[in-house]
Amino acid sequence: MSEPFVHALRVRYHECDAQGVVFNANWLAYCDVALTELWRARFGSYAALLAQGVDVVVADAALRFRRPGHFDDELELEVAVVRLAETELELRTRALRAGELLVEATLRYVAIDPATFKRTSLPASVRAGLEEHLVAAS
Amino acid sequence: MSEPFVHALRVRYHECDAQGVVFNANWLAYCDVALTELWRARFGSYAALLAQGVDVVVADAALRFRRPGHFDDELELEVAVVRLAETELELRTRALRAGELLVEATLRYVAIDPATFKRTSLPASVRAGLEEHLVAAS
Amino acid sequence: MSEPFVHALRVRYHECDAQGVVFNANWLAYCDVALTELWRARFGSYAALLAQGVDVVVADAALRFRRPGHFDDELELEVAVVRLAETELELRTRALRAGELLVEATLRYVAIDPATFKRTSLPASVRAGLEEHLVAAS
Amino acid sequence: MSEPFVHALRVRYHECDAQGVVFNANWLAYCDVALTELWRARFGSYAALLAQGVDVVVADAALRFRRPGHFDDELELEVAVVRLAETELELRTRALRAGELLVEATLRYVAIDPATFKRTSLPASVRAGLEEHLVAAS
Repeated sequence: MSEPFVHALRVRYHECDAQGVVFNANWLAYCDVALTELWRARFGSYAALLAQGVDVVVADAALRFRRPGHFDDELELEVAVVRLAETELELRTRALRAGELLVEATLRYVAIDPATFKRTSLPASVRAGLEEHLVAAS
Repeated sequence: MSEPFVHALRVRYHECDAQGVVFNANWLAYCDVALTELWRARFGSYAALLAQGVDVVVADAALRFRRPGHFDDELELEVAVVRLAETELELRTRALRAGELLVEATLRYVAIDPATFKRTSLPASVRAGLEEHLVAAS
Repeated sequence: MSEPFVHALRVRYHECDAQGVVFNANWLAYCDVALTELWRARFGSYAALLAQGVDVVVADAALRFRRPGHFDDELELEVAVVRLAETELELRTRALRAGELLVEATLRYVAIDPATFKRTSLPASVRAGLEEHLVAAS
Repeated sequence: MSEPFVHALRVRYHECDAQGVVFNANWLAYCDVALTELWRARFGSYAALLAQGVDVVVADAALRFRRPGHFDDELELEVAVVRLAETELELRTRALRAGELLVEATLRYVAIDPATFKRTSLPASVRAGLEEHLVAAS
């Protein structure tokens, strides 16, 4: 019964460029904001995740820009875990406005030990939390 | 004898996050800066491109983060045209530091008419300019 | 019985620089976010303000940085109107964390006609809305 | 015969907001970029400054926005030291476009020991470097 994690976010004025639309790089920043909120929902906070001896770094990102976002838009960021492996995971974030898909971003994260920066296994507790949002990729 | 367009850029302090490395979203912003400079080199400026009746919007982006960038790093952004079609193009931007690859980003751009926002053909003059940087994808 | 307008905001990861603290420029961005929310609370939205034939532009800003902000901090942004004149106004935004003052910013805004960009009078309806947050400067 | 330090900078597309002008917060970021370049010119780099046992943090900022900046503008950032005291200094940065003043920002910096974050004296070598740009306030 796992389902995406959802975080609502409103587009800020300065996140739009001179074309009046959300600048493309800001969608990656939104993914990061949504991930922080997922950590909070599942583990208390990003700091609490680090306290479990694991951090994650982005290895790859793929984004599809379907429709532009605009100033003051209320977005729903739906984050689904689409792959969960021993030392890495993939998250797919869909940004929706009133149910309409604007952007879809899939990011691959590698788990590292924050002390050594070496690739490490995801702790069982972290895996369990992420499994709550594990969905079949589509 | 076409070859990548190269733009040098120095990492700014606030482009690094609390981990001390370039925040992932900023690499997309760097791609945009490099593209602006490519327009300048080939067509005089981005405004001169628009004056030819064409604009481009990002449709997809794929990024691979190999090594982190740091404050004050001098980067070389190498932009290659890896696909040039009737109404769209793909640019591959490689960010290098002293010859070492940090990030590779491939963005697909769709040509639009800036007045109507509809997909349009790339003018012959623009195609000719872009062909100077057309390389085989690798 | 007027009192400051309050908007809560959480510090995002990439708003912190390599020192691990909120980058100074982002405090100005926070002031802008708080103002957008003030417009929403009083007039429906920033777009609704523009529909009244008035926009505002920042003419001056003065900021005092007392204590650093950090990632994930929950801030309260208290916005008070400290001066309300015919064609301009001053807003003082205090950023607090658990009641502790981090930053105080006072910005002077000039009212302009969005069509001509000329200085204009604040409409009576806008003045009335702003008076709800008019407090004695301190 | 001291005179301002000058750093040239071009406005990036995403530094402009939906009004098509440089977003106000970005002027503070430009001040920071100019300061980094001043450190480089005088001391080799910001890292070299830190190696002298001193860092600086912004305590106050005052900005006057005279004229808007636009995408692709070439700016000259003129940085003058307008006050140089035992443990702090004030820098005035003027952003000019073709000799026309757009923004003037005066920032007060406090010298701190990077190890303890306590206020400290500016080393003689740092003072000597800054004196090259010390001008009478105007």
